Amino acid sequence: MSLDPLFKPRSVAIIGASARPYTIGHRILTNLMEHGFTGPLFPVNPKGGTIHNLMVYRSIIEIPSEVDLAHIIVKNTLVKPVLVDCAEKGVRVAIVNTSGFSETGPEGLALEEELVATARELGIRVFGPNCQGVMNTDPAVSLYSNFTFARMVPGHISILAQGGGVAEIINNYFGMNEIGTRMYASNGNASDISIPEILAYYGDDPETRVIVLHVESFRRPARFLEVAREVAHRKPILALKSGYTEEGARAVSSHTGGMMGRDTTSDILFERAGVLRFNDLTSLCETAKAFECQPVPRGPRVGIVTNAGSPAIVATDEVVRYGLVIPPLSDRSADVLREKLKGFAAVSNPIDMAATASAEEYGVSFKALLDDEGIDSVIVCFITPFFVDTEAIAREIARLAAEAEKTLLCVAMTNENWKDTVDIVKKAGVPVYYFPEAASQVLYQMERYRRLRDRPPGEPKSYPAEREAVDRILAEATIMENGFLSGPDVNRILDAYGIPRVREGTAGNFEQLRPLAAGMGYPVVLKVMSREVVHKSDSGGVLLDIKDDPELKEAFDTLHDRFGGLADVRYTVQEQVSGGVEVIVGAAGIGELGHSIMFGLGGIFVETLEDVTFRLAPISEADAGAMLDGIKASGILKGARGRPPVNREALVEILLRTSNLVAAHPAIAELDLNPVFAHPERDRTRVVDARIRIER
Amino acid sequence: MSLDPLFKPRSVAIIGASARPYTIGHRILTNLMEHGFTGPLFPVNPKGGTIHNLMVYRSIIEIPSEVDLAHIIVKNTLVKPVLVDCAEKGVRVAIVNTSGFSETGPEGLALEEELVATARELGIRVFGPNCQGVMNTDPAVSLYSNFTFARMVPGHISILAQGGGVAEIINNYFGMNEIGTRMYASNGNASDISIPEILAYYGDDPETRVIVLHVESFRRPARFLEVAREVAHRKPILALKSGYTEEGARAVSSHTGGMMGRDTTSDILFERAGVLRFNDLTSLCETAKAFECQPVPRGPRVGIVTNAGSPAIVATDEVVRYGLVIPPLSDRSADVLREKLKGFAAVSNPIDMAATASAEEYGVSFKALLDDEGIDSVIVCFITPFFVDTEAIAREIARLAAEAEKTLLCVAMTNENWKDTVDIVKKAGVPVYYFPEAASQVLYQMERYRRLRDRPPGEPKSYPAEREAVDRILAEATIMENGFLSGPDVNRILDAYGIPRVREGTAGNFEQLRPLAAGMGYPVVLKVMSREVVHKSDSGGVLLDIKDDPELKEAFDTLHDRFGGLADVRYTVQEQVSGGVEVIVGAAGIGELGHSIMFGLGGIFVETLEDVTFRLAPISEADAGAMLDGIKASGILKGARGRPPVNREALVEILLRTSNLVAAHPAIAELDLNPVFAHPERDRTRVVDARIRIER
Repeated sequence: MSLDPLFKPRSVAIIGASARPYTIGHRILTNLMEHGFTGPLFPVNPKGGTIHNLMVYRSIIEIPSEVDLAHIIVKNTLVKPVLVDCAEKGVRVAIVNTSGFSETGPEGLALEEELVATARELGIRVFGPNCQGVMNTDPAVSLYSNFTFARMVPGHISILAQGGGVAEIINNYFGMNEIGTRMYASNGNASDISIPEILAYYGDDPETRVIVLHVESFRRPARFLEVAREVAHRKPILALKSGYTEEGARAVSSHTGGMMGRDTTSDILFERAGVLRFNDLTSLCETAKAFECQPVPRGPRVGIVTNAGSPAIVATDEVVRYGLVIPPLSDRSADVLREKLKGFAAVSNPIDMAATASAEEYGVSFKALLDDEGIDSVIVCFITPFFVDTEAIAREIARLAAEAEKTLLCVAMTNENWKDTVDIVKKAGVPVYYFPEAASQVLYQMERYRRLRDRPPGEPKSYPAEREAVDRILAEATIMENGFLSGPDVNRILDAYGIPRVREGTAGNFEQLRPLAAGMGYPVVLKVMSREVVHKSDSGGVLLDIKDDPELKEAFDTLHDRFGGLADVRYTVQEQVSGGVEVIVGAAGIGELGHSIMFGLGGIFVETLEDVTFRLAPISEADAGAMLDGIKASGILKGARGRPPVNREALVEILLRTSNLVAAHPAIAELDLNPVFAHPERDRTRVVDARIRIER
Repeated sequence: MSLDPLFKPRSVAIIGASARPYTIGHRILTNLMEHGFTGPLFPVNPKGGTIHNLMVYRSIIEIPSEVDLAHIIVKNTLVKPVLVDCAEKGVRVAIVNTSGFSETGPEGLALEEELVATARELGIRVFGPNCQGVMNTDPAVSLYSNFTFARMVPGHISILAQGGGVAEIINNYFGMNEIGTRMYASNGNASDISIPEILAYYGDDPETRVIVLHVESFRRPARFLEVAREVAHRKPILALKSGYTEEGARAVSSHTGGMMGRDTTSDILFERAGVLRFNDLTSLCETAKAFECQPVPRGPRVGIVTNAGSPAIVATDEVVRYGLVIPPLSDRSADVLREKLKGFAAVSNPIDMAATASAEEYGVSFKALLDDEGIDSVIVCFITPFFVDTEAIAREIARLAAEAEKTLLCVAMTNENWKDTVDIVKKAGVPVYYFPEAASQVLYQMERYRRLRDRPPGEPKSYPAEREAVDRILAEATIMENGFLSGPDVNRILDAYGIPRVREGTAGNFEQLRPLAAGMGYPVVLKVMSREVVHKSDSGGVLLDIKDDPELKEAFDTLHDRFGGLADVRYTVQEQVSGGVEVIVGAAGIGELGHSIMFGLGGIFVETLEDVTFRLAPISEADAGAMLDGIKASGILKGARGRPPVNREALVEILLRTSNLVAAHPAIAELDLNPVFAHPERDRTRVVDARIRIER
């Protein structure tokens, strides 16, 4: 079913409407009337009477006309019978404002489940319960179906928010600042009509240009991903996901899991979907304001024109700090400006015309930036000196903006006395900021969206693998403490998926180890193997740099002294690799979404530097490449200080094969390949140590 | 001389006053009159006449009364004779608004130098030229001596800004938002009265509680440091330093120099001074707003009370993200709240009372947080539901705030219809924010100030050193290309300052190298030494892991093949250290301020990770410790994954000795100790390679 009856109802009943002013039932009816809902409204209350000159029906059944949408504001235990009446009347959607459901505990949850089951049976959709409601500023509908108090300014931002408080402060912010919104929904417990469903609806609404989203938890993350990915490609979705504070505290036992704190799951979900995540509402709302009226920038190159030098320097600093570009002017632009501007004007980027700049000079400079092929977006800054006709400047900006195809932002450094000047620019569809760096920050976010949207799509890549063999290994494996697999099982799994690892052999005594070491060639590493020793390095169970037979004997004796008493102890001799960079490849199960894949600097750097990137499995070749480039230390892979670069293809392949492995075997809860030895030669790029934890 | 005649003049003359409305000379006079300057005003213009009922004097000499302060708005070439008249009249400070001086080039610079020389001779102080002016909101003075258009709201923020545009947008922002300011100065070319001088004056003004500073370049950084350090200990200085974009492009030839881009000099200057640096004006102004009326927090522990859950979660996320703490409530607080709040209220931190919360409930919760000894500051959040008496809530907040000693911030998520409610809180001296995370960010900045202010002072520490020996080495050294010293000279300098380095020996042929290697014990490193080879590693001039005599021979042959043709070639054999962490210690000359000292991860990590910290030399033991703790990878030094920690004292001593060295020898332009081998044992912590570049 389309959500049209929810957002574009032809009529609304308010069940639980009240004549008492300080009640939700009164407020919703009043809001609908005061904001000019275009259809009939039907208050319903068993007491009857009149509210705002509207006759109150004792039951919805009595209403002598069709009803699309009903607000239900009755006691929680009465919602179900009211829903039955609604269904009988042919109501298609019920907004249940009533609280006292799943948010209160097990009893309320049972009541909510019953409510949803009833609604499904009756063929009626439920929005809520424990929710605010919806809005639609479309003049053909003008629906303020909510008990809050924001202004409705018709425009192109649609809001979708789980938390009612956050929903309302976003909505109210737009209203206060005369920023145009389109639709609004805050669906509380989201028992039936879901966030993905509303998101899809906004995606299909031609007047919605940008979507503002607030979530606290993903109920159906896979469905969210599917919808968001499709919508985000067409219009920007700006999201605040709150509540990471609690999620940071999960208990984990692998490096990859350890790095996954702080709500990384949401990050990789948003990344895959192409959703822009924000940490603060100010940036989110100010960016939405720009997307509401301006096109997505074509690239990162910013031109700035100003009549005050120092604020333009602040804007420039901030543009550059965020990785955007302030290119020099083209020769043609510079020629035009040198001819037409005053001698003291700075013909450069930023173009600084000084405080005396006239409307004509603004026109010349702004036009030069609009015509300059090396510029993707323009920030027009102005102060309002008392000796200049600032309205003429604003009109000139507005005139040129009307024909422009580039992304335009304005910084107007003035106050309420110049409201008319500023309004001319705003009405031309150019978003106005006060502080110069605010515009720079917004442009950065817009460019971030462009990059997400324009990423190469990339399909997951599969390599041949012995999937059934791994199924068998996992089925038959003896699980060590905490769910870890034994070393030999881990090795067999890596081999089955063609993940290259260093040569090694395992034995119980020195006489058997010696020929193994000789076979692979010194130097070698000697490691203890026992179920009791999970963190081998940390326990002194790994000895490096063993150069010959006598040193092997010495190393063996050392480990034997330390661990010889363990019942299952054995020793692994492993070729020692050198000349490369230690990296980590990891994976962690994240429920319905499958697995995250991690890449970062390995060894002792993993936890201390936290220089890792994540993607959602399965990953494409492009994803794997972006992961290599995405760590801060990526320069090391490319060959720092005269070293040869590591073999990129080999690392990409290990990432892809790891992705294949975890995607095919959901029982793998955590996997660390740490370190992987990234080497200039493809054949010497190999996994040195690996751990796999399974959850059945 | 005190700056009282500038900020508290008893009378002001406006030389170049004009009756024409759109002139600076008219505007300054009008501003002074309209904002109620408390003394007499004297317009001066050779044309005579009347402006705003004031008789215009033809010359300042004619004024029949004393004049403290004169604005000069005449043509640039006429400023000097006017200044002579001013001096004759006994004027003590002249604000020269006139432009056309050093900002325009060499000719203007000459004019400015002449102006300053004349003023010095005449005993008159000059503010400007090419400047705006000053303000003082003190009702006893009420001085708006400027041609701009901000509102004057008396309060406690004083503004000092180099760039006139930025000065005015900060000032105007405070005025528009009814945030109280105290004094204002934008001194343009700053030819005489300087930024440090004004800063010191603000520091001594008892009504100035917080200083907002904008600088584009430091003319006398050492003097600035001296003043700012003294003032910042008493009151917060919030600074925006713009213009780093250009400074990032300097040419350098050492690692330390390379890391010094992006305006690091300003960072270390502000760090030493205890000045809070900001990248954006919004945060700067919003933080100033809080310092204007609230005490510095006593610590990082934040309590939150709210009547809307989801915004409080956003505030909590942001508090935690910035490293502040949301502690659990004390048992006592929890007991009180469980007794007095409704059953569904969340008795935790944040305290969430839900939308129905009354003034009484707010009082109980707010008081509990004020009384809780585990809480340092409190964020009070509220939405304004239509069914609640929100003014009563505001009055309750105001009542408790009046007695509170903790830092208090309010988040009021409402609109202009609840202006009266919000005003009650504002009038109680509690700063009000709209979005919840904005308050969290401000608290973080306030806590950052507390930490800077309360740092242990720490004196620079000196070690005995052979200073004169180094003077001689520097005087006699043959300088290699680009100003680098030869390896032996570098070694002698390190030895003279007791900076430990690995054992090594240099020779021209294999026969001499062999006994040197044997003496220090294998493994060793072999390096080429030649003036032609500055970046030895990058040129393949360093061979590692040489394990015995035959390998030494092989290594020697390799280097001989590569570099044997160089006229001055020699070879250094060096003991090879292992088992530690490679770090870098560096220094770079930064003009008048002396040197920066750098510490970070060494080897290939320096440039790629940019994980380095800087301080201004000379450093104290506390500084050196803070540098070790200040890198992201500091955990590696403390012993990651079961490794023993490196010896901290040894690194601290190397940092201090390096600081001693550069402080005593200003000719050292750049110094890299890279790598320094940080080792668990003090005696094995040694410099492996070092480079010194000098500028005479």
